[in-house]
Amino acid sequence: MKKIGILGSTGSIGSQCLEIIKEHPQEFNLVFIAANTNSDKLIEQAKYFKPKYVCLANKNEYFKIKSSLSNSIILSGMEDMHNLCVDSKPDIILNAISGYKGLSLSAKILENGIDLALSNKESIVQAGDLLVNLSKKYGSNIFPVDSEHSALWQCIIGEKKNNIKRIILTGSGGPFRTFPIEKLQYVTKEDALKHPNWKMGKKITIDSATMMNKGFEVIEAFWLFNISYDKIDIVIHQESIIHSMIEYIDGSIKAQLSEPNMRMPIQFALTYPERLKTESDNFDFIKNHTLHFEKVDYNKFPCIQLAYEAGRKKGTYSTVLNVANDLSVELFLKDKIKFIDIPLIIENCLSKHDSINNPNLDDIYNTIYWTEQNFKKELVNL
Amino acid sequence: MKKIGILGSTGSIGSQCLEIIKEHPQEFNLVFIAANTNSDKLIEQAKYFKPKYVCLANKNEYFKIKSSLSNSIILSGMEDMHNLCVDSKPDIILNAISGYKGLSLSAKILENGIDLALSNKESIVQAGDLLVNLSKKYGSNIFPVDSEHSALWQCIIGEKKNNIKRIILTGSGGPFRTFPIEKLQYVTKEDALKHPNWKMGKKITIDSATMMNKGFEVIEAFWLFNISYDKIDIVIHQESIIHSMIEYIDGSIKAQLSEPNMRMPIQFALTYPERLKTESDNFDFIKNHTLHFEKVDYNKFPCIQLAYEAGRKKGTYSTVLNVANDLSVELFLKDKIKFIDIPLIIENCLSKHDSINNPNLDDIYNTIYWTEQNFKKELVNL
Repeated sequence: MKKIGILGSTGSIGSQCLEIIKEHPQEFNLVFIAANTNSDKLIEQAKYFKPKYVCLANKNEYFKIKSSLSNSIILSGMEDMHNLCVDSKPDIILNAISGYKGLSLSAKILENGIDLALSNKESIVQAGDLLVNLSKKYGSNIFPVDSEHSALWQCIIGEKKNNIKRIILTGSGGPFRTFPIEKLQYVTKEDALKHPNWKMGKKITIDSATMMNKGFEVIEAFWLFNISYDKIDIVIHQESIIHSMIEYIDGSIKAQLSEPNMRMPIQFALTYPERLKTESDNFDFIKNHTLHFEKVDYNKFPCIQLAYEAGRKKGTYSTVLNVANDLSVELFLKDKIKFIDIPLIIENCLSKHDSINNPNLDDIYNTIYWTEQNFKKELVNL
Repeated sequence: MKKIGILGSTGSIGSQCLEIIKEHPQEFNLVFIAANTNSDKLIEQAKYFKPKYVCLANKNEYFKIKSSLSNSIILSGMEDMHNLCVDSKPDIILNAISGYKGLSLSAKILENGIDLALSNKESIVQAGDLLVNLSKKYGSNIFPVDSEHSALWQCIIGEKKNNIKRIILTGSGGPFRTFPIEKLQYVTKEDALKHPNWKMGKKITIDSATMMNKGFEVIEAFWLFNISYDKIDIVIHQESIIHSMIEYIDGSIKAQLSEPNMRMPIQFALTYPERLKTESDNFDFIKNHTLHFEKVDYNKFPCIQLAYEAGRKKGTYSTVLNVANDLSVELFLKDKIKFIDIPLIIENCLSKHDSINNPNLDDIYNTIYWTEQNFKKELVNL
């Protein structure tokens, strides 16, 4: 039985992970669940799964949880959460905590030789260098939970990395795939929140609309698969059935397909190198009878180019990219800035940044702080 | 350097194999080329590649070849060709000899522990049991050269066979994909020879039109991948870009894609487990912008069902299937029978056959003879 801990168990990815564990009680031993603020859902989950440890980041609710649960050891606060990752002795931890908090947890996991199933994309975009180095130094693995990177990972299994000609990340193109570029200045958050294929949180849905999400995935692919940016391409595939592809030096392409849901990539990260039976119908090629490909319009989606540039320049540029994007999306969702302002602000932040090479965790946090400060100045200039 | 022999070097597959060797002189050592009747082309090939041995099945042209070539040992006749497979000490032999002659050569190769790159589909359809047993007994490998089976093979690499939920063979649907079933009785050989995607010989083009070719591939998949017929499905994919797929128990599907040409599968069979760089452009997702899937119409293409049945019943049924099909296609190409007579005659032959379990080579040849005799009777009844 694989011992599993879940950071962010009350979120969408965490909850789906618990569903998988529920369906395969013989395969997994859930050693802890941890969440940020949703104490009610955490208690409910703990009552069902009875993990050894339960932890909430919000310390104020410690007694509420403590009084509700008698079968688990109750912890609270970020320090406890960090210690828990080691003390619970898991084989693998799913990190599905969103935002900055996820990063130091990812680092803690890897530097203790524990495998990391990484759903927290910010971790690797902000600090790919750091995390990959920790993983190498301490012999721990980073397993992607993103559907695209899970696809790439599956297509690489059994193949030699040297034989890769290029990686082809597929992207749905989001809600503005066919939208005229000149009208992008008028789009509202309601327009941007209508994703054609995936049901996701607001932040990531806006990232899909700007296609910054795909830019982040380019950086993630660079770090996870150690492949140069020149060999990472994007192709628009509106149906989100092919989750990504690898073209090999002999011209052969391997693709991974499935219905667009997150269960498959979560499960694969937990079960690798095995696969676990899922009770589901065969993939329906009649329902999914047509697959399309299109070029990416880099003019319409400048965020992608910003990501390639920040990634290529290494250092702390992609930290700035991520933080400036976070803050911009937040303002866009509050109707404070326009959709097309998002890449402009990010670009300005990047252009003023003095990057730090081979950043450590402090350098990353300092860069986050610098970006927040600089971001405010950029807003004044807007 | 890998030592390679080619049976059927003057045919389409053999010639493409020589092109690959020509482009990678550092990788391959061509130890022999052998052909059936085309002495002129064989001489031309031998002059360029200077293999140690050159062999022609037709003994009458021995002196012509002998007098034209001074750098190679010249052999002739089928006995020489069989001995050559062993005496030339190759690492792998491409068997691209069509028809019955291919079978005993395949057996000879495998029972001498030599790897077999198998383009001669008849071998495995007629005598899958025999060849697979030889391969196991003598530790030799059968590597598929068919694009579909090469795709499956590539999609299985690094995965466990137990984790396969099903194999999905793709088929273009041939020239009659959208043709009304009730008009099939009027189609001419000219109609049937118009294959939409692949340029192939006449026999295999007719097999594509009846979809018997796909039926053969079902049987081939059964023997090569040791997977039950219930787990082998067919889906129509008119563009022939996805060459086949594997669905795993967790719902993940792996597909192999490339332009429809035979170079990739030939080369992969020769280089496995390596891949060899091919100077070509990246796959063009803009040119190949749409991929379609459709159900197979088993009523329109009864040959597929005949193949499943013959395959499931094992013994010598698939030998009868193959021979009766060969003979029927030959008559159809001579305008002697109608297109829709092909499955009828095959079905009648199958229904009258007394199968032999675990057939040896003699049993196979006796079954070929029986089918030829019975076929004539069926014609009389037509």
